[in-house]
Amino acid sequence: MPDVRIVLVGPKFEGNIGAVARSMANFDVRELYLVDPCAVGDDAYRRAKHGSDILENAVTVGTLEEALEDCFLVAGTSGITTKGDRNYTRLPVLAGEFAQHVSGYEEKIAVVFGREDIGLFQEELNKCDVLITVPASDVYPILNLSHAASLVMYELFQTGKAARRAEPADRAEKEYMLSFFDDLMDAIDYPEHRRSDTSVMFRRMMGRSIPTKYEYNTIMGIFGDASKIIRNGKKWG
Amino acid sequence: MPDVRIVLVGPKFEGNIGAVARSMANFDVRELYLVDPCAVGDDAYRRAKHGSDILENAVTVGTLEEALEDCFLVAGTSGITTKGDRNYTRLPVLAGEFAQHVSGYEEKIAVVFGREDIGLFQEELNKCDVLITVPASDVYPILNLSHAASLVMYELFQTGKAARRAEPADRAEKEYMLSFFDDLMDAIDYPEHRRSDTSVMFRRMMGRSIPTKYEYNTIMGIFGDASKIIRNGKKWG
Repeated sequence: MPDVRIVLVGPKFEGNIGAVARSMANFDVRELYLVDPCAVGDDAYRRAKHGSDILENAVTVGTLEEALEDCFLVAGTSGITTKGDRNYTRLPVLAGEFAQHVSGYEEKIAVVFGREDIGLFQEELNKCDVLITVPASDVYPILNLSHAASLVMYELFQTGKAARRAEPADRAEKEYMLSFFDDLMDAIDYPEHRRSDTSVMFRRMMGRSIPTKYEYNTIMGIFGDASKIIRNGKKWG
Repeated sequence: MPDVRIVLVGPKFEGNIGAVARSMANFDVRELYLVDPCAVGDDAYRRAKHGSDILENAVTVGTLEEALEDCFLVAGTSGITTKGDRNYTRLPVLAGEFAQHVSGYEEKIAVVFGREDIGLFQEELNKCDVLITVPASDVYPILNLSHAASLVMYELFQTGKAARRAEPADRAEKEYMLSFFDDLMDAIDYPEHRRSDTSVMFRRMMGRSIPTKYEYNTIMGIFGDASKIIRNGKKWG
């Protein structure tokens, strides 16, 4: 994941600044620059929660230039975008595409968010190397400042890191478990001509659900017991 | 894009409810259910902005069950997830994966968010077909309520234009099929104390795989036959 600096230009509500700080903590982003912000007080800290240290260490500057010093790449955000390529200065890439683009970077990247009401001025947008946008409703595409920041950081975070999940079953375990399903079909005298299709169907279901080792073992135990009891019942019946 | 209903369980701060409503407007989601919420007043409407009609039309109910009526699939959210695969009842899929899974659906999907401080109770989580989570910091993974909602809706919105797949089973069929699994556990004398957990585990597996009507019926037939044969075998054995 690149080294991300969040830059808020002219934020008017301290609650939004606090909410951005919290969200930064959620996505392991530490560096916050505030350009000519409103006063930061209790409300900001209340909203920041465990991001309060980020708020405390935020660097306040007077101009956007100062906030962009040492940054390798500057990404601006704008809710107002053009669909045609006429006004190329406002032609954005999607946040997800941007995250893909920069996922291999280790350099510092600034992501710049504008004022709650009027966003970034043209001269500020012109300082950005790339404009990013979040796909949203045609009817009401203007996101809350901290929501927009969250979405961009979320994209950067998730493309910069592999997903964490419980250990999935490996291929051998999976095949073993599927064989228990086939065995259950055999035990209940499932129609021969349907077995192959049904077996594949069950494999697909399991493929979509991507069970863990624990889940496979549990299901395998139930199928195995059922088959055993059926065979014993039949033997003695 | 599926027909999404946002369900907030026990929200404590009206500002969060308003922020969720705004975010819903941003991602073309219209239906908001509030389960036993705090009072909704000026602060909520101030935060809702152009989502105020969503707030106005929100349905307030007393229990989660009421909020889930007519929903084809219920997705719960939890910031607290497990990394081991032992506690499978809290094993989530990523929001992006979930969005991919359901992108072809037109049925109603409920996405349930818990209280700001303690989330959803285990019994509430147990009513969910699938748990979804947003990848976030190991240090501080607990997102603000409206941020979490935004991220999930954003994923649903952006993956919402994919091809429709085979007709999925509806909720009644699903419950019926899950009851066949429970019945199979009963038939094989599966340990009483593990039944409830294993039942939820199987519900989660099915929730992640989102089977079609055909798949449900096929699996149900196999479980049903197995249970019947076991009971007959025992009777005569």
